[in-house]
Amino acid sequence: MAAEGPPEHGAGAVTDDELRTLDAHWRAANYLAAGQIYLMANPLLTEPLRPEHIKPRLLGHWGTSPGLNLVYTHLNRVIRARELEAMCVWGPGHGGPSVLANAWLEGSYSEVDPDVSRDAAGMARLFRQFSFPGGVPSHVAPEVPGSIHEGGELGYSLAHAYGAAFDRPGLVVACVIGDGEAETGPLAASWHSNKFLDPVHDGAVLPILHLNGYKISNPTVLARLPEEELQALLRGYGHEPLVVAGDDPARVHRTMAAAFDRALDMIARTQRAAREEGVTERARWPLIVLRTPKGWTGPAEVDGQPVEGTWRAHQVPLAEVRENPEHLRLLERWLRSYRPQELFDADGRPVADVLACVPRGTARLGATPYANGGLLTRELPVPPLEDHAVSVVSPGASLHEPTRVLGGLLEVLMRATRSRRDFRLFGPDETASNRLQDVYGATGKAWQAAVLGTDEHLDRHGRVMEVLSEHLCQGWLEGYLLTGRHGLYSCYEAFVHIVDSMVNQHIKWLRTASRLPWRAPVPSLTYLLTSHVWRQDHNGFSHQDPGFVDHVLNKSPEVVRVFLPPDANTLLAVADQALRSRDQVNVIVAGKQPCPDWLSLDDARAHCARGAGIWDWAGTEHGGGPDVVLACAGDVPTQEVLAAAQLLREHLPSLAVRVVNVVDLTTLLPHEEHPHGMTDLAYDGLFTPDRPVVFAYHGYPWLIHRLTYRRSGHRQLHVRGYKESGTTTTPFDMVVRNDVDRFRLVMDVIDRVPGLAVRAAAVRQHMADRRTVHHAWIREHGADLPEVAEWRWRPSRGPADGTDPEVT
Amino acid sequence: MAAEGPPEHGAGAVTDDELRTLDAHWRAANYLAAGQIYLMANPLLTEPLRPEHIKPRLLGHWGTSPGLNLVYTHLNRVIRARELEAMCVWGPGHGGPSVLANAWLEGSYSEVDPDVSRDAAGMARLFRQFSFPGGVPSHVAPEVPGSIHEGGELGYSLAHAYGAAFDRPGLVVACVIGDGEAETGPLAASWHSNKFLDPVHDGAVLPILHLNGYKISNPTVLARLPEEELQALLRGYGHEPLVVAGDDPARVHRTMAAAFDRALDMIARTQRAAREEGVTERARWPLIVLRTPKGWTGPAEVDGQPVEGTWRAHQVPLAEVRENPEHLRLLERWLRSYRPQELFDADGRPVADVLACVPRGTARLGATPYANGGLLTRELPVPPLEDHAVSVVSPGASLHEPTRVLGGLLEVLMRATRSRRDFRLFGPDETASNRLQDVYGATGKAWQAAVLGTDEHLDRHGRVMEVLSEHLCQGWLEGYLLTGRHGLYSCYEAFVHIVDSMVNQHIKWLRTASRLPWRAPVPSLTYLLTSHVWRQDHNGFSHQDPGFVDHVLNKSPEVVRVFLPPDANTLLAVADQALRSRDQVNVIVAGKQPCPDWLSLDDARAHCARGAGIWDWAGTEHGGGPDVVLACAGDVPTQEVLAAAQLLREHLPSLAVRVVNVVDLTTLLPHEEHPHGMTDLAYDGLFTPDRPVVFAYHGYPWLIHRLTYRRSGHRQLHVRGYKESGTTTTPFDMVVRNDVDRFRLVMDVIDRVPGLAVRAAAVRQHMADRRTVHHAWIREHGADLPEVAEWRWRPSRGPADGTDPEVT
Repeated sequence: MAAEGPPEHGAGAVTDDELRTLDAHWRAANYLAAGQIYLMANPLLTEPLRPEHIKPRLLGHWGTSPGLNLVYTHLNRVIRARELEAMCVWGPGHGGPSVLANAWLEGSYSEVDPDVSRDAAGMARLFRQFSFPGGVPSHVAPEVPGSIHEGGELGYSLAHAYGAAFDRPGLVVACVIGDGEAETGPLAASWHSNKFLDPVHDGAVLPILHLNGYKISNPTVLARLPEEELQALLRGYGHEPLVVAGDDPARVHRTMAAAFDRALDMIARTQRAAREEGVTERARWPLIVLRTPKGWTGPAEVDGQPVEGTWRAHQVPLAEVRENPEHLRLLERWLRSYRPQELFDADGRPVADVLACVPRGTARLGATPYANGGLLTRELPVPPLEDHAVSVVSPGASLHEPTRVLGGLLEVLMRATRSRRDFRLFGPDETASNRLQDVYGATGKAWQAAVLGTDEHLDRHGRVMEVLSEHLCQGWLEGYLLTGRHGLYSCYEAFVHIVDSMVNQHIKWLRTASRLPWRAPVPSLTYLLTSHVWRQDHNGFSHQDPGFVDHVLNKSPEVVRVFLPPDANTLLAVADQALRSRDQVNVIVAGKQPCPDWLSLDDARAHCARGAGIWDWAGTEHGGGPDVVLACAGDVPTQEVLAAAQLLREHLPSLAVRVVNVVDLTTLLPHEEHPHGMTDLAYDGLFTPDRPVVFAYHGYPWLIHRLTYRRSGHRQLHVRGYKESGTTTTPFDMVVRNDVDRFRLVMDVIDRVPGLAVRAAAVRQHMADRRTVHHAWIREHGADLPEVAEWRWRPSRGPADGTDPEVT
Repeated sequence: MAAEGPPEHGAGAVTDDELRTLDAHWRAANYLAAGQIYLMANPLLTEPLRPEHIKPRLLGHWGTSPGLNLVYTHLNRVIRARELEAMCVWGPGHGGPSVLANAWLEGSYSEVDPDVSRDAAGMARLFRQFSFPGGVPSHVAPEVPGSIHEGGELGYSLAHAYGAAFDRPGLVVACVIGDGEAETGPLAASWHSNKFLDPVHDGAVLPILHLNGYKISNPTVLARLPEEELQALLRGYGHEPLVVAGDDPARVHRTMAAAFDRALDMIARTQRAAREEGVTERARWPLIVLRTPKGWTGPAEVDGQPVEGTWRAHQVPLAEVRENPEHLRLLERWLRSYRPQELFDADGRPVADVLACVPRGTARLGATPYANGGLLTRELPVPPLEDHAVSVVSPGASLHEPTRVLGGLLEVLMRATRSRRDFRLFGPDETASNRLQDVYGATGKAWQAAVLGTDEHLDRHGRVMEVLSEHLCQGWLEGYLLTGRHGLYSCYEAFVHIVDSMVNQHIKWLRTASRLPWRAPVPSLTYLLTSHVWRQDHNGFSHQDPGFVDHVLNKSPEVVRVFLPPDANTLLAVADQALRSRDQVNVIVAGKQPCPDWLSLDDARAHCARGAGIWDWAGTEHGGGPDVVLACAGDVPTQEVLAAAQLLREHLPSLAVRVVNVVDLTTLLPHEEHPHGMTDLAYDGLFTPDRPVVFAYHGYPWLIHRLTYRRSGHRQLHVRGYKESGTTTTPFDMVVRNDVDRFRLVMDVIDRVPGLAVRAAAVRQHMADRRTVHHAWIREHGADLPEVAEWRWRPSRGPADGTDPEVT
C-alpha cells in the first residue's frame, strides 16, 4: 500500500484509441446488464431473438445500469493507468445488473463462482441466475465481489465509503451516489464526513453524484435544482464539483476521463500537502457530478411513451417481450445496438479491446481485498483484563462505574493500535457522557474543522469518532469493519433505535456473507448501550426504551449475541469476547453509574463463558434444591434481586432461595435455535423444571417469555421488567413504577411459593408498606429512601437457623 | 386565519423603548430558566441565597436557554406587532427551562396547570417541579403548552415544522434548529422540504439555525464552517440566510428585530406573488442564522475554566452550589445580574415592561390552537365503503389487489377534502408502486421544483407527499397530525424500520398527551405497510423484515393497533376504523398483489369489529367442536391456511377442522393489557382451551407466543411464520422455505392431532412429496407449481361423509 497516494497525472491525456476501448468496455457492460434482465438463452444473439429466449418473468433494474457501467469503465482506466489502489461503493440500490456485468467482464466473478465462467456458457448462467429463484437479487449484495454495500434500503453509501477510507492512506474509495439516495437523511448527513477525514492517515473518498434525474416514479430533488443552487450546495458541503454531463457517449467518455484525472490529481495534491508539507487547513475535496439519462442507450420510446431519460426506464423498459412482437423487435434492436459480435468472440469471451482498460489481479474492483476486508484483518491486541479488573474482596463490598472501567481498557487498546491504526471508537457525542473518556489519554476526537482554545481532545489524527448522528456512526463503523478493521459503538440505549434498519441490513449482510466461502470473516459490530432505561433522571419517559435487544433478537441467531453484564468485571469479560469475535453483532447493555462489584475477574470470566449461572453466595439453598428461583439479567435488576434475596434471608430464612444471573441472554433460547442456547437439561439445572421463578429483567418482560416459552418450567416463570411506565424521576422510583423493585420482588415470591402467602402475610404487608413509604418520601424529598440509596449487600453470616423472625 | 399571510413591515422600526421592554422580557426568561435549574426556595431572591435554597440534585440544561429565550421574546414582538398567526417548533433538545419560562411569563402555563400560578407561589412550583421526580423533564415535552415536538432524540424539528405549515396558508411556523441537531440525518434531509411547500395553500416555515457552537462536549460542524461555506450551503438548500451574531444584548436585539422583520416581509412578498400574481417560480425562503454564545449571560468562568461560550455551559454551569460557597456566590451574582426586582413585583408577578411584548389570548405561542391541533380537527369524510367494496359471491371466487381497492377509496377521500385540504397521503416514492395510484385522479404529487414534459402527476398544489426519505414522510405527517389534520403513510414493510425511533417518540408523545386534560385528541398515525415480506421476488433477503409490528407492540398498548387484513374488503374495513380514530398508531399490513376475496363487505365489517373470528365456511366441524384449529393472520398465511384446510377436507374429511382468522392482532393479548384484548373465555371460544392450534402468521412466529403465553391453550399452540429464511425467489417458494406452506401446515396438523400420525401417514407422505416436487419444479422452471400458482379455493360440496379417501 503506497503511503503517498496516487501519482499526479495530467488531464486530457486520453487518446482516441483509448476512447475506443473504453467505449467497447462500456458497451459490453451495457449489453451484459440488459442481457441479465431479459435473456435465458441465445446469450450472444447468434440467432434471431425469439420469445423462448426471453425469461418468463422480467424483473430487474435497467435505469441506473448504463451510468454505473460508465463509472466502472473509467475507474478501470485510472486504476490501470495510475496503479491506483481503489475500491468502489455502489450506492444506487438496484445496480446489480451493472456491477455483476463488470465483475464478469474483469473475471473476478468467475473466480468466486466458477460455474459462471467467462465464456458463452458462463454468460448464459450469468443471465439466467439474475432475479431468478435461488439466484442473485437485482441489487448489489454480498454475492457481488468487490462490494461492501447492499443496495435496496438506500442512504448509507457515502458513510460506508468514508468508513472504508479511514486509516487506509493509500486507498481511493469511489462512491456512486444516486440522486434518489441523496434525498435520504443518512446520505444528506454523510456529506459532512469530510470534516472527519484525516488527509494524512486516511485515504480519499471520491463521491460521484449520479444525477440521472429520477427515482422509482418521480424526478429527484437534486436533479431539478438550478445548476447554480446545486453548485452552492456541493461547495457548502466542502467539495469542489466537477461536472460531467451529456448523452453523446464519445463526448461523455472524454469529459469523464478528464474529470477522473483532475479529481485524482487534486486528491494527490491534497494528500501531499498534508503529508509532506504539513498543511493543516481542511481541504476542499473533489466530487464528480455525473448527469446522464436514466436508461441511457436503452429504448428511446416504447408504445408511444418516452422511456430513455425518464422514470419509465427505472426497471424493465420493455415489459411484454414474450407476448408482443414489437417489444421483441425493439429488444433485439436495442441489444444489437451494442454490436455484441465486436465485443465477444465466438466462445463468448470478451475480446482484447473490451479488456484493454481492465486492471490486473487484486487491482480489479471485484478482486480487491479491501472489499473483502476479512482478508486483511489482524487480531486485535486486547490487553490482559487483569490490568483493568476491579478487585472484589467480597461481593457487593465496593462500587465502580462499569463503563469507566472499560474506558481504561479501551485507552490501552487505543495505545496498542497507535501505529497499526485499526481500531476506532464511534459514538454520537457521548464518549465522555458514557464515562469512556480515559481513551482521550491515548487518542483524540477526529476533527478537521476549525479548533478554538477552549476545545478539548480534538485531534486531526484522532480515532474517536463523534458526530451527532447515529446513522453516520453506524455507517462509518460498518464500512470500517467490512474492510477488515475493528471498532466499538457506544450509544444511548433509547436512541440506538435510530439505526434499527441499518443493523437489520448489516445482520442480513453478515448472514449471507458468512455462507459465501470466498468472503473472509470480518470483525464483529459491537454496541455498548449505556445511559440505559433505568437511569434517565432528568430526561424521563421519552428517553426510556430497552427494545433494541428485542429488535436484534428477531434476526438470524447465528449472527446475534446479547450481553447484560451486571458489574464492571463482567463488562470487561463480555467486551473481551465481543472484541475478539467475527461476523457477529454483539449488543452489550451496561450502566455508567456506580454499581456494586459482584464478581472477581475469574468468577466473571467463568460466568460469562457459561452465559448464566447460580450465584451460590447470594442464595439460601440448604442442599435440597430451592423453593424459589430469583433470576436477573441487567445491572439494575441484579441489584434489586440481590436486595430482595437479602430481605428474604432476613425475613424468611427458612425459605430456600436460589439466585440465578443471566449475562448472555441468548443462553435462554433452545440450543437448537442458537449456538449459545442451553439444553433443556442445563436450563432445568439452573431454573428447575417446576419451582416458581421470579425473573427481574432489564427490558420488556415479554422478551423473556418469548425466549423461554418452550421450557418445561415456563408456566412457573414470572417476569418483571420495563413496561413503559416512566417519567422524570429517581432510579429507585423507576423500578418501583415498573414493579421491578426489591419489595415487589419479595411480594412476588411470597405470592408464588405454594403455602407461603399465609405464613408470610406480615412480611408481605411490610414490603407493601415500604413501597408506600417510598412514595411519600419521594414526594416530600425528591430523592430515594436512604435505606435504598445507601443499600449495600450484606453477606450471610453463616447458615440460617431456619426459623423466621417476626417482622418488626 | 388570514389567507394572505402577514402584512409587510419596514425593518429597523424597533424603538429604544421597545428594546428596553424586549430586554426585560429576555432577562426575565433567563432568570426563570436558571431558577428552574437551581432553586427550590427563595425564588425572587428576596433574601441572600443560602445552600438550603438550592436543589439537592442539580439537573437541567442551561446552555441553549438564553438563545431560545431571545427567539421567544422576538417572536412575541412580531406576533403582536403584525397580528401574526404563528407557532414555533423548538428543536434544541433540552430547551425545557426556556420554553417553560416563557410560557409561564405569558400566562399560558398557568392556564394548563393552575397550580403553577403566575405569582411567587407559582414561580416556586415552576422551579421545584423542573427535573424533579414526578415533575417535568429537562426537554420540551407534551406537558409544555405550545409544543408539538419532543426534545431529546433530535432530528425532526424542521420536518415537524413543515408538517405543521402544510395547508395552513395564514400560519408562520418558526423552527429553531440547534447546531447539534443539524448534524443528524433526518434534519439534514429536511432542508429540502422547501421543494414541497406550496406558497399558495401552505403557510411559511421560518428556520432559525441557532449556532451556539457546541453539542454535549464537542463543537458542532456547522458552527465551525467558514462563513462563506455555510452561506453556500444554506443557499444550496434554497434559503436566503439572514445573519444575527454577537454577544452584546442591545446590538443583538436590534439585529434580531430587523432580521425578523426582513424575513417576514420576504415571506409576505413571496406569498403575495404566488397567491395574487400567479408566480410559480420556486421562492428562495428566508432563514435566520443566530450566532450567540452557548450559556450566554451565565457565568463566564468557573473554577478557572471558561464556561460561557463553551461546551461546559451545556448543562449545569455551577455544579457544587450547595457545598461550595464560591459557587453559591457566583450563582447569586449570576441570578441577580438579571435584576429580578425590576422584572417581578413583590408578589412575583411579571411587571408591565416584561409583558409589553407578549401577545394576547390564542396569539400567544403557548396558547395557539395550532399547537394543540385536536382543537381544530374536523371529522374526516371517509366515503361509504359500499362504493368501493368488491362483490364477493362466494369466498375465494374472485381476486383483487387490496391496496388498489383502497386506492379507489382514497381518491374519493382526496376529492372530498379538496377544499378543506386536511388529508394527505405520504410515502417514499411508492404510491404507485404500492398500487394506490388512483389518488392521482383527485390530486397530484406536491412538487415546487422544475417540471419536465415527461413527468406525471406533479402538482404545485398536490397533497400526495413523495420523497425518498422515510424520515421526512414520518416527520411531515407527525407535524400534520399534531396540528389537527389527517393522513396516511404507505411504506414498504421492511424499510419502515427506518423510522422505528421516530414512532417510539410519537407513541410516547401520544401516551403522555392523552393524559393531559387540556390536550385535545389528534388524528391517529396510520401506516399502510405493503410490498411485504412474502412478496420480494426480485429483491430478496435484504428486503424481508416483518418486525415493525413487534417493535410497536412493545409500546403503550392503549396507543397501538395492528391489523392484518386478509383481503380487499377487510382492508377497507380496517382502514375506515383507522382513519376515523384518534390518538393512536395504527399499523395495517396488506398486500398489493392479487389476492382472493374472502369476505363480503358486511362480513368484513363484522369480522374487523370483532378482530378475530371463526370462518365456518372454511372449516369442517361437525357440531362437536374441532379436532384441530388452523389459525391465520395476514393475507399470504390466510391463503396457505385455506389451502391446507381444503387439502385436509379432501384427504381427511373425518377430521373436524376449525379455521380462525385474526385481523386485529391485539385481540390476542389479555383483555387486562389491551383495550382490544380478548377475555380468556372469548379466546377459548375461538381457539379452544385444549385442542392443537396450528397458527400461520405473517411475521416472526415468536410474536404470537409472546401475545398468548398466558392463555390456557398456549401449550397446544404451534406457530409458523417468517424465520429469516429468505432469498430472491417466488412467492410460494418463500412460504416453503419458511415452513408456512399448505403442505407443511397439513403435516403439522397430522403431527399434532393425537392419534392421527399413524392413520394419516400416507397423507403426510403425500404432502412431503409435494414439497419435493416443488423444489424440483422451481429449479427447473423458475416458477411455482401450476397447482399452486393457479390454486383457487373450492367450497365444500356439502357435509363430508366422514370416511377418508386413499391418497392417490
